[in-house]
Amino acid sequence: MFIPHKVLEEKLLSLLAEDIGQGDVTASAVIPSRLRAEAEAVVRTPGVIAGIEEATILAEALGLKVTAEVSDGDDVKKEQVILRLSGDARTVVTMERTMLNLLSRMSGIATATRKTMQILKKARSGTRLAATRKTALGFLYFDKKAVVIGGGDSHRLHLDDMVLIKDNHIVLAGSLETAVKKAKRNASFSKKIEVEVTKPADALKAAELGADVVMLDNFSPAQVRTAVTWFTKAGFLGKVLLEASGGISVENILEYASTGVDVISLGELTHSVKALDISLEIVKPL
Amino acid sequence: MFIPHKVLEEKLLSLLAEDIGQGDVTASAVIPSRLRAEAEAVVRTPGVIAGIEEATILAEALGLKVTAEVSDGDDVKKEQVILRLSGDARTVVTMERTMLNLLSRMSGIATATRKTMQILKKARSGTRLAATRKTALGFLYFDKKAVVIGGGDSHRLHLDDMVLIKDNHIVLAGSLETAVKKAKRNASFSKKIEVEVTKPADALKAAELGADVVMLDNFSPAQVRTAVTWFTKAGFLGKVLLEASGGISVENILEYASTGVDVISLGELTHSVKALDISLEIVKPL
Amino acid sequence: MFIPHKVLEEKLLSLLAEDIGQGDVTASAVIPSRLRAEAEAVVRTPGVIAGIEEATILAEALGLKVTAEVSDGDDVKKEQVILRLSGDARTVVTMERTMLNLLSRMSGIATATRKTMQILKKARSGTRLAATRKTALGFLYFDKKAVVIGGGDSHRLHLDDMVLIKDNHIVLAGSLETAVKKAKRNASFSKKIEVEVTKPADALKAAELGADVVMLDNFSPAQVRTAVTWFTKAGFLGKVLLEASGGISVENILEYASTGVDVISLGELTHSVKALDISLEIVKPL
Amino acid sequence: MFIPHKVLEEKLLSLLAEDIGQGDVTASAVIPSRLRAEAEAVVRTPGVIAGIEEATILAEALGLKVTAEVSDGDDVKKEQVILRLSGDARTVVTMERTMLNLLSRMSGIATATRKTMQILKKARSGTRLAATRKTALGFLYFDKKAVVIGGGDSHRLHLDDMVLIKDNHIVLAGSLETAVKKAKRNASFSKKIEVEVTKPADALKAAELGADVVMLDNFSPAQVRTAVTWFTKAGFLGKVLLEASGGISVENILEYASTGVDVISLGELTHSVKALDISLEIVKPL
Amino acid sequence: MFIPHKVLEEKLLSLLAEDIGQGDVTASAVIPSRLRAEAEAVVRTPGVIAGIEEATILAEALGLKVTAEVSDGDDVKKEQVILRLSGDARTVVTMERTMLNLLSRMSGIATATRKTMQILKKARSGTRLAATRKTALGFLYFDKKAVVIGGGDSHRLHLDDMVLIKDNHIVLAGSLETAVKKAKRNASFSKKIEVEVTKPADALKAAELGADVVMLDNFSPAQVRTAVTWFTKAGFLGKVLLEASGGISVENILEYASTGVDVISLGELTHSVKALDISLEIVKPL
Amino acid sequence: MFIPHKVLEEKLLSLLAEDIGQGDVTASAVIPSRLRAEAEAVVRTPGVIAGIEEATILAEALGLKVTAEVSDGDDVKKEQVILRLSGDARTVVTMERTMLNLLSRMSGIATATRKTMQILKKARSGTRLAATRKTALGFLYFDKKAVVIGGGDSHRLHLDDMVLIKDNHIVLAGSLETAVKKAKRNASFSKKIEVEVTKPADALKAAELGADVVMLDNFSPAQVRTAVTWFTKAGFLGKVLLEASGGISVENILEYASTGVDVISLGELTHSVKALDISLEIVKPL
Repeated sequence: MFIPHKVLEEKLLSLLAEDIGQGDVTASAVIPSRLRAEAEAVVRTPGVIAGIEEATILAEALGLKVTAEVSDGDDVKKEQVILRLSGDARTVVTMERTMLNLLSRMSGIATATRKTMQILKKARSGTRLAATRKTALGFLYFDKKAVVIGGGDSHRLHLDDMVLIKDNHIVLAGSLETAVKKAKRNASFSKKIEVEVTKPADALKAAELGADVVMLDNFSPAQVRTAVTWFTKAGFLGKVLLEASGGISVENILEYASTGVDVISLGELTHSVKALDISLEIVKPL
Repeated sequence: MFIPHKVLEEKLLSLLAEDIGQGDVTASAVIPSRLRAEAEAVVRTPGVIAGIEEATILAEALGLKVTAEVSDGDDVKKEQVILRLSGDARTVVTMERTMLNLLSRMSGIATATRKTMQILKKARSGTRLAATRKTALGFLYFDKKAVVIGGGDSHRLHLDDMVLIKDNHIVLAGSLETAVKKAKRNASFSKKIEVEVTKPADALKAAELGADVVMLDNFSPAQVRTAVTWFTKAGFLGKVLLEASGGISVENILEYASTGVDVISLGELTHSVKALDISLEIVKPL
Repeated sequence: MFIPHKVLEEKLLSLLAEDIGQGDVTASAVIPSRLRAEAEAVVRTPGVIAGIEEATILAEALGLKVTAEVSDGDDVKKEQVILRLSGDARTVVTMERTMLNLLSRMSGIATATRKTMQILKKARSGTRLAATRKTALGFLYFDKKAVVIGGGDSHRLHLDDMVLIKDNHIVLAGSLETAVKKAKRNASFSKKIEVEVTKPADALKAAELGADVVMLDNFSPAQVRTAVTWFTKAGFLGKVLLEASGGISVENILEYASTGVDVISLGELTHSVKALDISLEIVKPL
Repeated sequence: MFIPHKVLEEKLLSLLAEDIGQGDVTASAVIPSRLRAEAEAVVRTPGVIAGIEEATILAEALGLKVTAEVSDGDDVKKEQVILRLSGDARTVVTMERTMLNLLSRMSGIATATRKTMQILKKARSGTRLAATRKTALGFLYFDKKAVVIGGGDSHRLHLDDMVLIKDNHIVLAGSLETAVKKAKRNASFSKKIEVEVTKPADALKAAELGADVVMLDNFSPAQVRTAVTWFTKAGFLGKVLLEASGGISVENILEYASTGVDVISLGELTHSVKALDISLEIVKPL
Repeated sequence: MFIPHKVLEEKLLSLLAEDIGQGDVTASAVIPSRLRAEAEAVVRTPGVIAGIEEATILAEALGLKVTAEVSDGDDVKKEQVILRLSGDARTVVTMERTMLNLLSRMSGIATATRKTMQILKKARSGTRLAATRKTALGFLYFDKKAVVIGGGDSHRLHLDDMVLIKDNHIVLAGSLETAVKKAKRNASFSKKIEVEVTKPADALKAAELGADVVMLDNFSPAQVRTAVTWFTKAGFLGKVLLEASGGISVENILEYASTGVDVISLGELTHSVKALDISLEIVKPL
Repeated sequence: MFIPHKVLEEKLLSLLAEDIGQGDVTASAVIPSRLRAEAEAVVRTPGVIAGIEEATILAEALGLKVTAEVSDGDDVKKEQVILRLSGDARTVVTMERTMLNLLSRMSGIATATRKTMQILKKARSGTRLAATRKTALGFLYFDKKAVVIGGGDSHRLHLDDMVLIKDNHIVLAGSLETAVKKAKRNASFSKKIEVEVTKPADALKAAELGADVVMLDNFSPAQVRTAVTWFTKAGFLGKVLLEASGGISVENILEYASTGVDVISLGELTHSVKALDISLEIVKPL
């Protein structure tokens, strides 16, 4: 998910522009026009930091000097300084909230992902933790990138990068069999085909029909284990990936991971984010 | 916060377009091109619904027929059908995730706001619950509207609609006094002036200098009570609003409300949203 | 109304791009491709200059070297050089008209505002002169900023930054009383509420209902004076602002100002602008 | 200058969106959400109406029913109703100012153009009245169209639709001769070539070099007459157009027109517009 | 590659808007403003038609009535009418060129693809014909869709939908082995991994390292045959796809296809398009 | 057709952004994040290079160092290095395809134009070779510029820069005579008027009515010769330009040119481009 800085810059500036509206009325009323300032972004609760690259691009685009004291993915402690900014004082306070919202949400996602990964690792199963498309609208790139920084897998990025046949597609296609056959015939060879199933027998059927990935939707850990066993017997294990999804949370994820399923996807990583508390402090006017 | 449907439509379509990328490869591979379908949006966890207006605008813009079974702000129960869609089957599955992300996040915010308002009401104090600018970037309108649907106050919508002098502004202006005086002189008469203070004495000072609202930042309930008392004595109560902010959560909000403070603002309403679980089910291909 | 340079730059470049279309066919046909030039922007009629900041941002974004000889708000004389540009000759002539249109309109507005302010000051009443939303479409920021540079008040910047209940709203709400009560209940505490009235008695009523500002629409100076008197008696003066609007021009504004009204707003400041005559002269090819 | 309605609609909606910001806070606070209304746009000062087509497209795009009582170019009287709207009440008041600003500016331009044309016609010379590129930035299409509605000539629409060699180009090219020769050689055959000159002799030279139009910059009426005479003698009259520009106003334009010059261009038609006073009145809530 | 009509409409309208600039000066000068017309799009050279869906969406968005006489993918004969339009006459001529450019390019691509597919089919090998990313910039969706209509495979749609490790990536990663291993570890499980190799031995190595697809770059047919044989022996055939690319054209493609390679990609399908000749004829003014 | 670099940069970055989607998944997976690289763009087939200016602007905007070894319009040989890039390795591979597509198409157009011009020159007639509006949609500027670099004439750039009355306009206007008269009356004096005719007699009629250019549509060389003869006799030659269009290709163009016609326009220059083969090679990681 690499985007050249200049292209990201445009995206970030348009988010900032929306927040500003017709101009920051406080900065212009209260702060002298050529005053310069130094500021620090400080973490108020420990976690995993994400968004440093984006915050840096945004601040530099605005003509501020930026020193990043940490890198994306670093563990940060309470009261740790993560970024130092200096430059035009009005610019600093005007971009403050946009930069903090970016850092707080991305870091919140990275923190939850890392924490969940640490649970997963106890299963010693190599199971991947994946995000879903349940992100903040218009913010998908940043949400997905935060998951990756936290150690997770981005999963699909668009509706155009993988064939994912879900329950609704199967109903509309007529049957799982028709749906997968049509996908094999019509979709580009460059795309993987994933099929969502609701019972272990269908998992096997999907693999036999040529799915690259099978999503076990709302399976109990026991059902996942059954699917894994059947896949092992049929020789699909390692060739057709198994993804568990639905009804999984930090509480029961270890149980799922211990089944040896290849991927567990968790909507809450991005749809129910707890933002990391980060604030910006003016150190001194220059 | 009224935006004519057609203008909202453009915003919603651009969010959808970003999610689609170069085209939904599953819909085109698996679903016949002229098939029509009926679908229902169903709530999986109880809460307060929000986003019905936006979901309707989006679906209608795409040529789907929509029947809303509930209105924004309604309490919804598990398994309750909130929207019925019918029309082109590919369109239904392609817009599904964008529509659900919109509804889930907005409803999550409205649900948390309503729940918090119910606690507040126990204080019988008339205290308003307000959002902050800690929203998902690029999604501010929808986050703020969800707060309003849940019974809260939108607070500032941009950097251009109110003067809010925060700690950083005061440092840069030199002193609280200078900052407020400059704001009174330089800002438009059409804007309110709010001042953030960190001790009760400054609250009084800000009011005396002509602030319209004073934000008590990270005050304990006792300190808030002191500020209220001093405002009462000085005759500011009801004329200069008091807003408590920082360190407040659902756990201690009742204590704050019982001080009689005018407004309590809560960042977590929008920065740490728990999405409401909503899904879309194809009822039948037509 | 502070917007960071980089964000303004995007706005200015898109205005330029529209003017260029598919390319300046004169510059490419007539001027050698690597020629460099020096140019001066010269004022042809005296006035108050505005737009220097924007012109500088635009020229620098295009890679030109800029020296501003004056600052926004300065009085300028006939034939005074206000800006010196140097750099790529084709770029200079291609951006010439966009830069001049910007400077001419903004300076025209600033000049009229300053001139009107000087009349107002004769009233020694502290009355503010405010703009309206009657600006060139798509150019509001620049029009409002020019008013501020000229010494005026920007008034509302959007439909989202103040509640302004006008005659049409009152008709639709049913009555002035209903309208103001609904606004007090429904609008965010962060917005001021202004109410437009057509007779002195309603001005008092609006204040009693809790309006922050009362707009006296098409009042004669005598009626304004009555409203001021009644406000004084009722103790509203200084607490609820009075704004006179409608039927006011440079000819009669002193009469209005001498009533002691807090604000006078003048649509013609931005809807009927007389552009300042400014031209660009190539001093020498380099 | 024909643009299909749907394409104009996008342009108009984006102008409206900018004015709305994050939502009209008055409409939502004060007007019931399903109320419908009827409104009339009424002219307060007589003039020539322009913008009816645009106002209609905008209102219809927003779902309002529109009846135009006049057509673009009609003379309108004080208190004449020009448009009737009906539909969603909130939408009516939210789009009111954008629609009125559009109509007022365009009608102001059309009125001034018609008035000037009437003077020109007294000269019985067939002289065309043309606009310049001194328009409101971002609003060029509407300004030019208003001139056309008033009976004027749009002149250039971009930097890409005509070669216009001005003083600065000549300085940079080295000489008038070089500039015109390069233009003849390098510019597309599809473009006319116009050359700005500052003395009658150069007018002749430009024509001899092959210019299609010669602009007489800041010529006195006597000098223009000289140029016309020389053109007549040299057989250029009617083949190479003569345009007078600079230092011309409504006061002396008849003198210029009577020289028989082909075109007179007037910057003030669009840079110093006097808006026509038009307002919108709610007739009744429905 | 399904995109809902309304989303495609925005894309098409912006392409049209660019072509129009500040307005069609011919239509407004020459055609009466309320005239209606009927027109037919007629094919001048036989081929495979593509773009009918897009042309229909564009024309309907502009308020024209459209009857498609053929469907995307149909073979069309010289002088065959493919579309009938009726509606506002000015709109018809203004959108004519944009619609024809769309149809001509897309049909040219579909025609070449179909023709090449017919050669491929002679090999009875099931080899897929794929496009590359060598498309017209900004027009990728339409180019890719035309390939699909002609019977080809879209291949990658973005840089985000497949990992494709090319020679440059291998040089930068250090070795083929490092590159593939990093891709397996870092890329999302949802993406296929394709590796470009320049000799048969590397094809085998890439497959052993876990590539999903191996691209044989600039292989002779004999070398491709070697790779196929080795893949068969190693048990990779059918599991790891082989794509031949580079140095292939309509002349030698049959030779390549007869090797049994899974995919052949051809840049010229989209980078060197021969447009189908299609024109629009006004049948009658209405 | 001069566009300042910064304005072109925006256009180029948005083309790149579309190609990237949500991020280059190969670059981020395979290439170390701070690696730097040197690369060369190499021509694989001889031709005329175009797009060097655009490629340079794009690469520099992305922070790469660029050295152009050739200039737009230079003849280039097989294996000639045309550009050297150095900088961030990920950025180099991510922008590679966008830059190459730009160079390949523009150079393909310039090459075909130059080749055709060389044929034309044999006629020693001074006939201009012009492009049409049959370009890749959204890419008109680049296509037209490539024609100019190859020695051709851009012809119209929009629908707004020339009046071109084609067959469809004549049908709708009623007659050639009506159409031209209306154009003379209604169109701006700043536009040339071109009229398309289908027989020599109409060519004469159009000239008599005042057309600036007459397009001879689908004339045989003999018919063109007739038109030239008649124009000579009537004294129109050199005053009213003659443009031959339709049914002309590289095969018969010399025959057309030898008639002495002023302009020949060729749709295939831009609608049926053969891309020049150019590739990018990493020379070394740094």
